[in-house]
Amino acid sequence: MGRGAISQLPAFVDARRDTVGPRAKAVYLIDSFFARQPDLNRRLGIRNDDVVRYVDTTNEPTTDGIDVLTSEIQGELSNLPATIVGFGGGTTMDTAKAIANLLTNGGNAADYQGWDLVKVPAVHKIAVPTISGTGSEATRTCVMTNTKSGLKLGMNSDYTVFDQMVLDPDLTATVPRDQYFYTGMDAYIHCIEALAGSYRNAVGDAYSRETVNLCRQVFLARDMMSDESREHLMVASYLGGCAIATSYVGVVHPFSAGLSVVLGLHHCVANCIALNALSEFYPVEHKEFRLMMEQQKVSLPRGVCASLTESQYERLVAATVVHAKPLTNALGPDFRSILTDERVIDIFKRM
Amino acid sequence: MGRGAISQLPAFVDARRDTVGPRAKAVYLIDSFFARQPDLNRRLGIRNDDVVRYVDTTNEPTTDGIDVLTSEIQGELSNLPATIVGFGGGTTMDTAKAIANLLTNGGNAADYQGWDLVKVPAVHKIAVPTISGTGSEATRTCVMTNTKSGLKLGMNSDYTVFDQMVLDPDLTATVPRDQYFYTGMDAYIHCIEALAGSYRNAVGDAYSRETVNLCRQVFLARDMMSDESREHLMVASYLGGCAIATSYVGVVHPFSAGLSVVLGLHHCVANCIALNALSEFYPVEHKEFRLMMEQQKVSLPRGVCASLTESQYERLVAATVVHAKPLTNALGPDFRSILTDERVIDIFKRM
Repeated sequence: MGRGAISQLPAFVDARRDTVGPRAKAVYLIDSFFARQPDLNRRLGIRNDDVVRYVDTTNEPTTDGIDVLTSEIQGELSNLPATIVGFGGGTTMDTAKAIANLLTNGGNAADYQGWDLVKVPAVHKIAVPTISGTGSEATRTCVMTNTKSGLKLGMNSDYTVFDQMVLDPDLTATVPRDQYFYTGMDAYIHCIEALAGSYRNAVGDAYSRETVNLCRQVFLARDMMSDESREHLMVASYLGGCAIATSYVGVVHPFSAGLSVVLGLHHCVANCIALNALSEFYPVEHKEFRLMMEQQKVSLPRGVCASLTESQYERLVAATVVHAKPLTNALGPDFRSILTDERVIDIFKRM
Repeated sequence: MGRGAISQLPAFVDARRDTVGPRAKAVYLIDSFFARQPDLNRRLGIRNDDVVRYVDTTNEPTTDGIDVLTSEIQGELSNLPATIVGFGGGTTMDTAKAIANLLTNGGNAADYQGWDLVKVPAVHKIAVPTISGTGSEATRTCVMTNTKSGLKLGMNSDYTVFDQMVLDPDLTATVPRDQYFYTGMDAYIHCIEALAGSYRNAVGDAYSRETVNLCRQVFLARDMMSDESREHLMVASYLGGCAIATSYVGVVHPFSAGLSVVLGLHHCVANCIALNALSEFYPVEHKEFRLMMEQQKVSLPRGVCASLTESQYERLVAATVVHAKPLTNALGPDFRSILTDERVIDIFKRM
């Protein structure tokens, strides 16, 4: 952890090559944002016979997409790789985690969507986040949308956790400001939901509190992207990921999931759009969120649910209220008496 | 984590028996404080053919002591055990960690004192802390004094980390108040030293800050042993252990080590005695520490360094200033110009 830490990545990869065998290849999954960056191979320790794939983050991972990529990578390997490096944001890191599980467990990505279905340890993997907030570097899941069923669910397993990570805040200096804000808010929103819920434990609360504190320091500062702020947000992302492991979300994430499933919005911006319309459930946090947006001069997409069809609104309702666990956490088991169809649609129309 | 969580321990152990094989025994290392507690076998899921040892915590672990215990336990096992449960404080948990490493790696405890000398994964192990503060449940070390050389150093290794833990604050309800305070202060003192040092990183700082916050809540509360306080301190211990992994201590721990090595004082009470005499280096924290003692009506042993021989004072100085890394962290590379022999002895005489 620290500025310039990325210079240690080649040594970490080489240590794995030494352990596994002199001819062991490494697999690099790299956010396509970095595709044309000069000198990248040297900085990441990529050798000529390593397997490199640039991950297109236009869409978030799907089970079919993971299967195709896994099979391509297998085609370039005669043995298991020394390690898999996930260099990018949540999409890239989650892709690395899923492929690492599949290379040793076989089968298809959809076979492992759920809890503790991964049977044997994954290939060694290293997280190098280049944007902060999702916490993928810390969590035991890798979220994928099932291409057939539409189910958005990860491979929740101890084997999904990264073996090593390199946290270098210099890597987030080139992130577009809006994207930086939305993604950072992923950590903040998760933790304010967890702290407002009824399913709580003291470890999760401690992680959430410190994450929220760090996010406040970052997003209420003069510049959320100063060297200091980027370092703080990288820590918030990691600790927020640790918080996820032992807590539940609340009202924001179910609405956000609706936006993702029905309208294809990315997770982080969808979270922000949802919180922005949910002041009635999170009055204090909503006010702070608006203050942060103002302070950082960030704007949100507007009218994303304007002029939808009746059937689209119905699907939005269904994709929201299906999340019974977080909604119970926030509103109690009777949450449908609070979140009636009409009220849910009304909230979406405000977005 | 939570009150009553101990009721889940038998299921965790049985899951390991199912994984390893129907005849697999479990090993239980239990603080001798609990030796005559009725119903303990049922509560911990102990079966008739399991291996149970009560750990005497009069003295902290030594390499020879670990070797003897390991060999006794091996004598009762025909195969590797399903799991090792460490039920107790830092001494008991560290003993469990050391034995788990030795059962798979062979050799003697002293062979692995250092960094990353453990070669293969340890036996599965579960931490059940019954007193809060040392952070042993979270760390990658198990501190032992080398019987021959006097060196106090653990087996620092990823393999030393527990696989599971049960954090049940009900278990700390019967701890004597003084001991509860001294041990809880282990977490506090480590973190205030880390936050005052020059070797820092943002992850360690976050863990340390939250640990100090929790300790303040506990020790400035009306009763440090209320249900709520005991839960908070259990989390502080865990997060303080996480902080240790990525940070360095300062002036308190070297003086405390002197007290342990030369006078045989236990780590946690020695820390408190040292901080109590080090107001010149930690004025704010020293004041807070005194306030906590007063609030909880806890007292410290006095005059522990009175009427020592010249040679004992010399050994105290040597055992203190040998800790160059933490002293540099706190005072810079020139720390010996600040901590002259005379000044060190003067500080010890105040204890």
